[in-house]
Amino acid sequence: MLALLLAEGPLSRVELARRTGLSSTAVTKAARPLLDDGYLHELPPERTAPGAGRPVNPLAVTADREFFAGVKISADALYGAVCDLRAGMRATAGRPLGDDRGPAAVGALLHELVDELLDKRPEFRDRTRHLGIAVSGDVDRTAGRVRYSVLPGWRDVPLAETTARATGLSVVVENDVKALTAAEHWFGEGIGAEYFALVTIGAGIGSGLVVNGRLIAGAYGVAGEMGHIAIDPAGPRCHCGQVGCVEAIASTGAVLAAVRTGTGRQDLDFDAAVRLAREGDPVARPVFARAGRAIGTGIAILVNLLGPERVVVTGEGLETYDLFGEHIKDAYAAHCFKAAARCPLTLRPLPWEEWARGAAVLGIEALFP
Amino acid sequence: MLALLLAEGPLSRVELARRTGLSSTAVTKAARPLLDDGYLHELPPERTAPGAGRPVNPLAVTADREFFAGVKISADALYGAVCDLRAGMRATAGRPLGDDRGPAAVGALLHELVDELLDKRPEFRDRTRHLGIAVSGDVDRTAGRVRYSVLPGWRDVPLAETTARATGLSVVVENDVKALTAAEHWFGEGIGAEYFALVTIGAGIGSGLVVNGRLIAGAYGVAGEMGHIAIDPAGPRCHCGQVGCVEAIASTGAVLAAVRTGTGRQDLDFDAAVRLAREGDPVARPVFARAGRAIGTGIAILVNLLGPERVVVTGEGLETYDLFGEHIKDAYAAHCFKAAARCPLTLRPLPWEEWARGAAVLGIEALFP
Ligand SMILES: [Zn+2]
Ligand SMILES: [Zn+2]
Repeated sequence: MLALLLAEGPLSRVELARRTGLSSTAVTKAARPLLDDGYLHELPPERTAPGAGRPVNPLAVTADREFFAGVKISADALYGAVCDLRAGMRATAGRPLGDDRGPAAVGALLHELVDELLDKRPEFRDRTRHLGIAVSGDVDRTAGRVRYSVLPGWRDVPLAETTARATGLSVVVENDVKALTAAEHWFGEGIGAEYFALVTIGAGIGSGLVVNGRLIAGAYGVAGEMGHIAIDPAGPRCHCGQVGCVEAIASTGAVLAAVRTGTGRQDLDFDAAVRLAREGDPVARPVFARAGRAIGTGIAILVNLLGPERVVVTGEGLETYDLFGEHIKDAYAAHCFKAAARCPLTLRPLPWEEWARGAAVLGIEALFP
Repeated sequence: MLALLLAEGPLSRVELARRTGLSSTAVTKAARPLLDDGYLHELPPERTAPGAGRPVNPLAVTADREFFAGVKISADALYGAVCDLRAGMRATAGRPLGDDRGPAAVGALLHELVDELLDKRPEFRDRTRHLGIAVSGDVDRTAGRVRYSVLPGWRDVPLAETTARATGLSVVVENDVKALTAAEHWFGEGIGAEYFALVTIGAGIGSGLVVNGRLIAGAYGVAGEMGHIAIDPAGPRCHCGQVGCVEAIASTGAVLAAVRTGTGRQDLDFDAAVRLAREGDPVARPVFARAGRAIGTGIAILVNLLGPERVVVTGEGLETYDLFGEHIKDAYAAHCFKAAARCPLTLRPLPWEEWARGAAVLGIEALFP
């Protein structure tokens, strides 16, 4: 019931009863402790039609009843945020990683960052119990361990336990794409969708998949690996060992490598490759186009298999959207099977703070075990 | 509770309580009407260790309490079966389609076939209430309509309603691959799996996917279309309009077309193509190998996205397993991402009666709305 109010905003008890399938007595009874604890409050009565009975006081979530800290650990920095109970962003902060990127050094920085965030407002310090941490890599959420990340020395790190000890907060650790997908499913474009997918593009390419209302975890901890599906036997070799993965064609690293090889200019960085393509360079432009087609094909494959209601495509890679957005959409349309083509794609850039918000939402979810 | 007993066989009330999370009073109470109606019976007491309390009478499903008819409609024949409550096959029958393959003619034949099946034993006639129909094509199960099938004139056919009127049975219509997947999930290798996939190969290539314990339907009615995922931009054009679909490379029709083109012998039929390949023909053999690789790649893509616990590969195409089984397995292993490779593949042929059994299981499922 609280989850419904979080996602959808104020609802009357009658409406809540209808939507949850509970009796209105049960709704009233369930609401009582939440009202007493300050998680819910009653709004002023709504005007109802004459003769429609007693005036109705809709129930609403008290957004600042509790705050949630979130930190995304990226390859070179930490990004943090404090959100309220409705995932509203209240504060952000970040810091670059130092030369030592091992678990101990990053853990210490993370602790500092959380302190900085909570010190921003006395109510953050008083009313924050949960911290979510989002990491790019292989995460065992149940055990609170990072099994693998691109950071050096990160193998089977018990991050939840050590951070909980350092901060005194209850800590959830999750893969960053999965955290972002859950946030989008609870508070974004995925609200209410039984089938939903979020695709992230950038240094890596991944996806989070919601099926039958729940995030797919995979029986062996692998799911949503859209970056590592093989779409071209004549494509480049991927760092994962396969040939022709979407990521081997379309990650920022793969695009840069292809532009460097094509132009013979090993000194180019990604921004320079983007500039070349925007200027219409005959080598750089088709590289971005090919990346867009690979992404669009990969999304169509995902849609043909899972049948999502809608797909959000995001990530830092979307900042160069102008160079490949149309190619994503064209390849997507060309490769969707029949009615699957009705599934709309939303493409939008992803500011770094959104990753931190995704991490904070892990804490909100933790209220609903 | 009945579902658990159906899938797993006799269990004690204590065990049932543990597995369902119900209290043992609730189990006893729930079992009472099922015992009274004859769906369950008590087995003789099991010997328990001395001092372990009262002897235990396990509960078991009374398999022949009710029977279920199932019919698979294929492109050229009807295949029927009668199953008991535990999906045990009790009778089969089939008949070829006539020249008229429109909905009315096929419907009349289907009615005849169901009569033939139920007439085989008086108890079938007495204790069959449900008929499941499995159709290759696009089926709206909720509405009981076949929206599209390969049979001529089958567009938006209200098959459940007309068949229910003709037979007096309660009718469920479902896509054949989905029906088979559900049967395998309830009574076969998928028992207890939260994530499970069944892939069928033959004239078409498809898959049924179980995620979080439920069959995926897709928000727009499309899901599991493994045959129409694009894996090779240099591949052949598919009847669906795309280029490089798994089905365009690996269906029996695609394999035959490639062998005919390669050998220049348009007179070959599929059996002749198989014979050539088995004799080591340098054109035919690589065509089957390529088909196997396409199927293995497609399954790996499905596994990387969904993370099933295991995959069953089946279908009439598996009868030529010797020609491409190893290629399926090799390509699968080469394209699985990390821990996804732990997901085992089971390859096995699919006798036609199994399709009919899958249809009959639709009726068993209908007991659990
Ligand atoms: Zn890869
Ligand atoms: Zn196709």
